[in-house]
Amino acid sequence: MKKTSDEFLKEFEELLSQEMSETKCKVEEAMAYSVLTPGKRLRPLLIWSICTDMNVSSEYVWHPALAVELFHTGSLVHDDLPQIDDSPLRRGKPSCHIVFGNDTAILAGDGLMLRAFRVLSESPANPVVKEQLFRCFSRTTYQVLVGEALDVQYTGGDPSLGEVLNMYAKKTGALFSFCFACGPIMSEKFEFVERFSKLGEVFGIWFQILDDVKDTCGDESKLGKPVGKDVALGKPTVTKILGLEKSKIFADKLLKSVVHRLEDFELILTCRLLENLAKR
Amino acid sequence: MKKTSDEFLKEFEELLSQEMSETKCKVEEAMAYSVLTPGKRLRPLLIWSICTDMNVSSEYVWHPALAVELFHTGSLVHDDLPQIDDSPLRRGKPSCHIVFGNDTAILAGDGLMLRAFRVLSESPANPVVKEQLFRCFSRTTYQVLVGEALDVQYTGGDPSLGEVLNMYAKKTGALFSFCFACGPIMSEKFEFVERFSKLGEVFGIWFQILDDVKDTCGDESKLGKPVGKDVALGKPTVTKILGLEKSKIFADKLLKSVVHRLEDFELILTCRLLENLAKR
Repeated sequence: MKKTSDEFLKEFEELLSQEMSETKCKVEEAMAYSVLTPGKRLRPLLIWSICTDMNVSSEYVWHPALAVELFHTGSLVHDDLPQIDDSPLRRGKPSCHIVFGNDTAILAGDGLMLRAFRVLSESPANPVVKEQLFRCFSRTTYQVLVGEALDVQYTGGDPSLGEVLNMYAKKTGALFSFCFACGPIMSEKFEFVERFSKLGEVFGIWFQILDDVKDTCGDESKLGKPVGKDVALGKPTVTKILGLEKSKIFADKLLKSVVHRLEDFELILTCRLLENLAKR
Repeated sequence: MKKTSDEFLKEFEELLSQEMSETKCKVEEAMAYSVLTPGKRLRPLLIWSICTDMNVSSEYVWHPALAVELFHTGSLVHDDLPQIDDSPLRRGKPSCHIVFGNDTAILAGDGLMLRAFRVLSESPANPVVKEQLFRCFSRTTYQVLVGEALDVQYTGGDPSLGEVLNMYAKKTGALFSFCFACGPIMSEKFEFVERFSKLGEVFGIWFQILDDVKDTCGDESKLGKPVGKDVALGKPTVTKILGLEKSKIFADKLLKSVVHRLEDFELILTCRLLENLAKR
């Protein structure tokens, strides 16, 4: 019998705790602190739903799901540093550098990213599937970095809508594109990898615009991070360029286009997950 | 006809420049600056020599050789940050953060490490070999991070000789263990991977002790980095524990043991390379 999303998330948290249970140094403690702070685990959940929709056996889901969460957390640890976004709060708790200091947080971010690759390399999938996972993960994680670099570079500047969307596609879209690609990769339908990657990227842009909207008019206690930071930091955002209402309409169109394409592929579980996200 | 080491290094520099030629953001400029500053390229050279000794076709050498140099440079960029070792000089030139600022240097270090994985994932080797390369690279790069973390943690403290050697085995030995393992992995003699990894680790400990010795009595203009930093920073080193003379004798024994084992395997080119290193 197939797992429900709650069952998946419960098991995922257990595996994540297990993965981080042995800490041999302060940096590994900082890594565990950051990644075990409760979060939505949206990226692992997406890998699970898309793989379930495509009949991938659940034993293959864990490694990419853990890898994507470890990497995502590592990139957040670096983003939050005083030298970058200077965020004291993450997931409702003090950021890694606030608790452990800047030196440890720099290494903890590195450690989480590298650990992500190590976990992925331990997947029980066959070598051909693993090669595809490895290629896709290393390409998309590098894109996340370029997106973050562009974000820092554009801050205080005046980039065009196209430039901001390209930055979103990389910074936020790339990792979702890995999540979406896990379905065709692990079901060995390699001819669909590119199309699914693109859908993940568009979904990521939707997700980032929603994040902008929440930063403009959200509730700090719900978000677990400060509100109004983008404007305060002079961050270029879609909402800043298009305004709040037009941004919402634009984002809505993006999500609908992704859901329609997923419906064409009969990925029912994933469609439902995306629609539920939109309602939040 | 087989290449000489000079021919290899010339071609390696060209490929590295080519890899870094397109820069889409300031972070990529910082990455190129750091990795294209002339260095000894010892890790790529070791991969080349061991692969040549084991008759691996040269087209398979480039990807792991580029990956190891990219990763190594990325880890140095983070080590040099004011929050970690605070080194203003690297390879005789101002460190990355001095030229580009701390924010860019943090992201450039990330970028170099991630780019290393991307380059490795593009290797033309067969999926089974690539799986082994991927496993070995992700395991050893994570060890480098743990070693660096222990180094920071031990600074100002009083670790035992065993603890310092374990830290060296990770911080410096792990990446050399990847270099040594490339020989058996790429010649598909997988049964030797573990033994070669261990030799690389011991070689790395030798290399790190030599680095300590140079820090104690070296020439700044030759080293391209400040001298006497370890003591000034309160770094735990083997020379601090054993004294200069005993450290040299200990290191000498380590190198000889590695060379003897390599002779058993008839890895002539690599033996000669190691012996030349010892003479410097």
